[in-house]
Amino acid sequence: MSESHDREIIGGHLLVIGGAEDKYNERRILKKFLEIAGGTEAEILIIPVASDFPEFAADVYTQAFRNLGVARPRVLRATSRQDIVDADVEGLLDGVKGIFMTGGDQMRLVSLLGGTKLAEKIRSIVRSSNVVLAGTSAGAAAMSTTMVVRGDPSSHPHKAAVRLSPGLGFLKNIIIDQHFTERGRISRLVTAVSYNPYNLGIGIDENTAIILDGKGLLEVFGQGSVTIVDGSEITFNEIAEVADNESFSVCGVQFHILRDGLSYNYIDRAAIQPSGEFLLPDLG
Amino acid sequence: MSESHDREIIGGHLLVIGGAEDKYNERRILKKFLEIAGGTEAEILIIPVASDFPEFAADVYTQAFRNLGVARPRVLRATSRQDIVDADVEGLLDGVKGIFMTGGDQMRLVSLLGGTKLAEKIRSIVRSSNVVLAGTSAGAAAMSTTMVVRGDPSSHPHKAAVRLSPGLGFLKNIIIDQHFTERGRISRLVTAVSYNPYNLGIGIDENTAIILDGKGLLEVFGQGSVTIVDGSEITFNEIAEVADNESFSVCGVQFHILRDGLSYNYIDRAAIQPSGEFLLPDLG
Repeated sequence: MSESHDREIIGGHLLVIGGAEDKYNERRILKKFLEIAGGTEAEILIIPVASDFPEFAADVYTQAFRNLGVARPRVLRATSRQDIVDADVEGLLDGVKGIFMTGGDQMRLVSLLGGTKLAEKIRSIVRSSNVVLAGTSAGAAAMSTTMVVRGDPSSHPHKAAVRLSPGLGFLKNIIIDQHFTERGRISRLVTAVSYNPYNLGIGIDENTAIILDGKGLLEVFGQGSVTIVDGSEITFNEIAEVADNESFSVCGVQFHILRDGLSYNYIDRAAIQPSGEFLLPDLG
Repeated sequence: MSESHDREIIGGHLLVIGGAEDKYNERRILKKFLEIAGGTEAEILIIPVASDFPEFAADVYTQAFRNLGVARPRVLRATSRQDIVDADVEGLLDGVKGIFMTGGDQMRLVSLLGGTKLAEKIRSIVRSSNVVLAGTSAGAAAMSTTMVVRGDPSSHPHKAAVRLSPGLGFLKNIIIDQHFTERGRISRLVTAVSYNPYNLGIGIDENTAIILDGKGLLEVFGQGSVTIVDGSEITFNEIAEVADNESFSVCGVQFHILRDGLSYNYIDRAAIQPSGEFLLPDLG
């Protein structure tokens, strides 16, 4: 247990969002983010680096958090790696209780942020405190040690169905995929897990999130479903033997579809049975 | 074992094709059909009833089998249930070694053929002899006791994602889905299996087939993959508790992706490990 616990340990809280979370109406996920961060008084930092239009993404989330009662959300203003290297890391993160990475292109996010003092400092405070780190879409994909860069939607699982790259490593040995059911990404996630079944695959639908704590608890929150692809029981895996565009066989993949309110232990790799309250009818 | 053997037993051979099998070039699946039927001398019966244009479907397959060397393929000429009731069942099936059900609409196929003497006779000869019964697309869907009538592609698994109906019953307690990866049907097959996890779900890609014998052996043959959805290890299943268009949680679904040449035991529900020949290099 302690060995496996060492695998995915993250420290504080992660809120990993499948993209397209509601920003204007019910806003359950953004409200949850603020709730975990400690309410509207909490200092919030927006990281819009993944976006093609980071100023626009920053404005959207600044306004969204203001509408929810946060007085002055902070923003990492950066369009280049140099901007991030030059950023006032201590000032940006001083007293911050919630960090929010927007969508866009995970390759941009990671290639600009990876290996910087800012990324290191975020990792360190997420591990040693209860600061919540959230990411949506590209910001979600980039969370882990291995991330999906791109892949074919709705195609056969085949050796080249997915391209992987090292992510920011806030979460270890888990591969996150987003816009999951909407874009038909089951094949590419199965392919990604088949590369190395040590990784757990987690596909998150739009307007849906998982909340992870450091003890292994993953809770599903939001409108859609979360699909867990667990390769630890794979008995036959042919991926190394086929050519790049060839499909491959894989046997013994387990998967779970979890909706709002359900939980999974990502360390023990087990769905947590909901407490089955057996309601007796009132026979009064 | 004898109890579980009783579940899916079929007798002879079934060749269940995921649709769009190659009819003009390599023609591996049609050749395989003839091979199992006993070669080009074998009497072949084409059942084009599922098709919107049964005469056209009959012509396509008549020509395809002629091109492969079958002198005079027989055809069930019928556009109504009355035609089938009036058909010369003994004459059509006398000496037949292979029966081929074309694609089209499985509801039409079953509503015209189900419960007729012809269907009963086909079931009886498939069970008591080595006659091969093949079906492609709608002809594949209709094979089992429960068939998929329609369903939403690529959507969330939700309670109404699939509509089921009783099939022709040549195969028991297995739900066949076709054009599987091409049309993103994993969600609807998981939904179908969740209705009653006693059923095994088998999704077959285009130009791909499974060959089933009466002893539980399922072999994959063709270009694409076969996806097996096994619900027998499901630990949590919420499908009964949600509203029609609501998604549901289900935990512990096992699935296997099998390519050409791989096998599965559909009675024991276990992928058959390919014999791992460990080839030693010639160190001469």
